[in-house]
Amino acid sequence: MKIESVDFFYLSMPEVTDAGDGSQDALVVRVEAGGQVGWGECEASPLVSIAAYVTPMSHGACKPLNAVVLGKTIDGPSDIERLAGDIEMECMDLLQAAHTWSGIEMALWDLLGKKRGEPVYRLLGYKEAFPKIPYASQLFGDTPQETLEGCRSARKSGFRAVKCGWGPFGRAGLKEDRDQLMAAREGLGDDGMLLIDAGQIWREDVDQAAARLPMLEEFNATWLEEPFYGGAYDAYAQLAARSKKVKTAGGEASHNYSMARQLIDYGKVAFVQIDCGRIGGIGPAKRVADYAAGKGVTYVNHTFTSHLALCASLQPYAGLKNDVICEYPFTPKSVAWDMCANHIAPDANGEVHVPERPGLGIDASLDGMKPYLVDVEIAAKGKVLYRTPKL
Amino acid sequence: MKIESVDFFYLSMPEVTDAGDGSQDALVVRVEAGGQVGWGECEASPLVSIAAYVTPMSHGACKPLNAVVLGKTIDGPSDIERLAGDIEMECMDLLQAAHTWSGIEMALWDLLGKKRGEPVYRLLGYKEAFPKIPYASQLFGDTPQETLEGCRSARKSGFRAVKCGWGPFGRAGLKEDRDQLMAAREGLGDDGMLLIDAGQIWREDVDQAAARLPMLEEFNATWLEEPFYGGAYDAYAQLAARSKKVKTAGGEASHNYSMARQLIDYGKVAFVQIDCGRIGGIGPAKRVADYAAGKGVTYVNHTFTSHLALCASLQPYAGLKNDVICEYPFTPKSVAWDMCANHIAPDANGEVHVPERPGLGIDASLDGMKPYLVDVEIAAKGKVLYRTPKL
Repeated sequence: MKIESVDFFYLSMPEVTDAGDGSQDALVVRVEAGGQVGWGECEASPLVSIAAYVTPMSHGACKPLNAVVLGKTIDGPSDIERLAGDIEMECMDLLQAAHTWSGIEMALWDLLGKKRGEPVYRLLGYKEAFPKIPYASQLFGDTPQETLEGCRSARKSGFRAVKCGWGPFGRAGLKEDRDQLMAAREGLGDDGMLLIDAGQIWREDVDQAAARLPMLEEFNATWLEEPFYGGAYDAYAQLAARSKKVKTAGGEASHNYSMARQLIDYGKVAFVQIDCGRIGGIGPAKRVADYAAGKGVTYVNHTFTSHLALCASLQPYAGLKNDVICEYPFTPKSVAWDMCANHIAPDANGEVHVPERPGLGIDASLDGMKPYLVDVEIAAKGKVLYRTPKL
Repeated sequence: MKIESVDFFYLSMPEVTDAGDGSQDALVVRVEAGGQVGWGECEASPLVSIAAYVTPMSHGACKPLNAVVLGKTIDGPSDIERLAGDIEMECMDLLQAAHTWSGIEMALWDLLGKKRGEPVYRLLGYKEAFPKIPYASQLFGDTPQETLEGCRSARKSGFRAVKCGWGPFGRAGLKEDRDQLMAAREGLGDDGMLLIDAGQIWREDVDQAAARLPMLEEFNATWLEEPFYGGAYDAYAQLAARSKKVKTAGGEASHNYSMARQLIDYGKVAFVQIDCGRIGGIGPAKRVADYAAGKGVTYVNHTFTSHLALCASLQPYAGLKNDVICEYPFTPKSVAWDMCANHIAPDANGEVHVPERPGLGIDASLDGMKPYLVDVEIAAKGKVLYRTPKL
C-alpha cells in the first residue's frame, strides 16, 4: 500500500484557558493507503505540528514531513519502522517533527491493523492484551476542598486509583501542599492508589522536591511524577536516592526512544510514562516498554486527551501482564470525548481492556469533530501550503 | 525596558536543494525594547519556528511564545534567564519552542549589550575575549576530487583547520570513505587540523562508526562528529571507549542545557558543539561552556549559517583561553552572507576575534535581506496570526 494522503484536523474548544488541561484542543490525523483509512492524534500544539508537515524544506536534513511520508509503501510493521528512521534523518533539524510524526505513525498502525484484521498489539508481537487498572487523571483543585471532591467523584465512578496534578501544587508553601495531599487522600479513601504529578514545578531544584517526600509518604502516594524538567536526569536520580518509599515517575516529555531510555538509566525512575503522541508513535513506545521490562521499571501510558490517543497508548504495553497502571483522562473537555465514536469505559472490576478490534479499536466521529474544527490557512512563497480540509 | 515588539523575517535562497547545507535559509529575529533594537537568528525551519511564536494556546503549559515574551521587562542578564525559565514552563509541551526562543534570546543579549555599551561576552562575566582558530566548515564533495579541491581552497584562504561533513560520507563502503578522507588530507596538507562530520549517518550502529576509526586515525582526524542520533548517548560512549586517538564530538542537536550536559556525562564526548540558535540562546550555551570547562571537555560553537549566528555562538566561550576551535561557515549561500552588514574574517594569523563592539557586534543589513524575504501568512480561528513584516 502506498500512502496516498495525510490530512490534519485541528480541533479546539471555543475557549482555551491557561489551566494545565491538555484536552482543550487536539490534532487528529487521517491517513489513507490502499483503500484503508487510519486515524491518529498528535500531542501537542496543533498549528505548529501542521506547519512541520507543510513547511518549505530548509535543507536535506530539515525537510517537511510531507516530503518524507507521501507515496511511501506501508505493507508491514517493518515499513513503519523504516519510515520512522527516514523521518529521524531527513527531518533531523526540525524539532517539531517528532510530534507531527507521532500522529501519523499511530494512524499507520491503525491502518495496518485494519488491513490485516488484527488489533495493533498483535502486530507488535503480543499474543494477548491484559486488563489495566485505570487511574482517574485530573488536575488538583484550586482549593483542597475541590481536590477532595474531585477524588471522591473519581472513587464513586469506580476508579481504584487517582492522580492529582498541576494546579496550585508546589506553587505555595509546604503547608498548602500538605493540605492538598490530605484532601486528595481523604477523597480517595485509604485503600485507593494515590499518584501525584508536580508538572515540572521545581525545574532542577532537588531540595524543593525532597521537602515534599515526607508528606507524600504520610499520605501514601505511590509516585511523584515530573518533579523536574523532562531532561534533568541528574535531579531525578538525586531525588530517587533521597526517597525511601515514594517512587519517581516521568517520561512524557520524551520525544524519542533515547530520551525515555535515559530517564530510566540515568534518571532512575521507577515508572516510565510514555505519550505515543509525542515519542514518535507506537513503535518507539513499544521499544521503551521492552527496555523498561528488562530493567524492572514499570511502563505506564501518558494520556490526557482522547480515547483515540488512549487506545494508541495502551498498545505498546498491552501484553505486559504486570504493568497494570493506566492513565485515564477522567474529566476531559468535550472536544476530546466527542471526536471519538466509541470509548473504553472501566468494567465492573474497575479495569479497562484494549479493544479486540482491528487497528486501534476506536472510530473517529466526523460529526463529533465538526463543531470543533478550526479554520487554518498557511501560505508561503506564493503557495497555500495548508488549508483545513473538509471533514 | 519592556519588550515592545518581536518580528520574524524568513529569508531563503530562491531555490533550496536537499544538500545538507544549512545556510540556504534563515530566520532572523528583531526585538525592540526601550528604544534599542537587538537582532538574533533561529536555527532552523523558519516557518515552523514562526508558527510556534504565534500559534493559539493549547493549554497553560503549551502557550505560544508571544504570550510569554511580549511586555516583559529586560534590564539585565538575570531578566533574560528568568524569561528563559518562563519559556521552559509555559511552553513546556511545545517542542519547537526552544528553536524559536533561541533567536529571541540572542536578540535580547544584543539589545542589552547595545544598551550598556558592552560586548555580550562581558555581560556573561568574561573580562577578555580570546582569539579563536576558525575551521573552514564545508560539505564533502560528491567525489574525492571535489573534496580535495574544497580543502585546498580553504587552505589557500588561510585556514589552518578544515571540517568535511555529510555528503557521501558513510553512505557507501569503507573504501569510498577512505578515498574521501585521503582526499581531504591531501587538500588540507599534513599540518592542518582535519575534522570529520558524519551527520548522524550510523544512527545507533556503533560497529559501523568504529569501522571508520582506523582510517580516521590514518589520516590524523582530530574528531569524528555526530556519528549517531543526537540523543544516542550510549552509542557515543561505546565509540569513545573503542577509539584510541580519534575523539568524538557532538552536541548541535541539544535544545536545552541538560541535553548538552548529558552528552558530556553519558556520551563521553571530548568536544561539545553548541548551536546558540537551537539550545535556547546564549545563556544556556554559557552554562554548557562552564560545565564543559569543569569536565575537561572542549567547547566549540556550531554554526553553519550567518555571521550574526557566528558572533552569537562565539560569546559563550569567548573568555575560555584554551578552547580555541571555532566553526566558521566557509562557503555559505549568499543569503547567509548578505543579511549581515559586517563580517568577521580571519586575520593574518588565521585567527578570528569576537567584535569589541556593543552587543553581538554584527549589524543586520535590511537591504541585504530584502531580496531573500519570504512572504508568509498564517491564519487560524478567523485571525491573521502572522504576516511577513516590512523590512
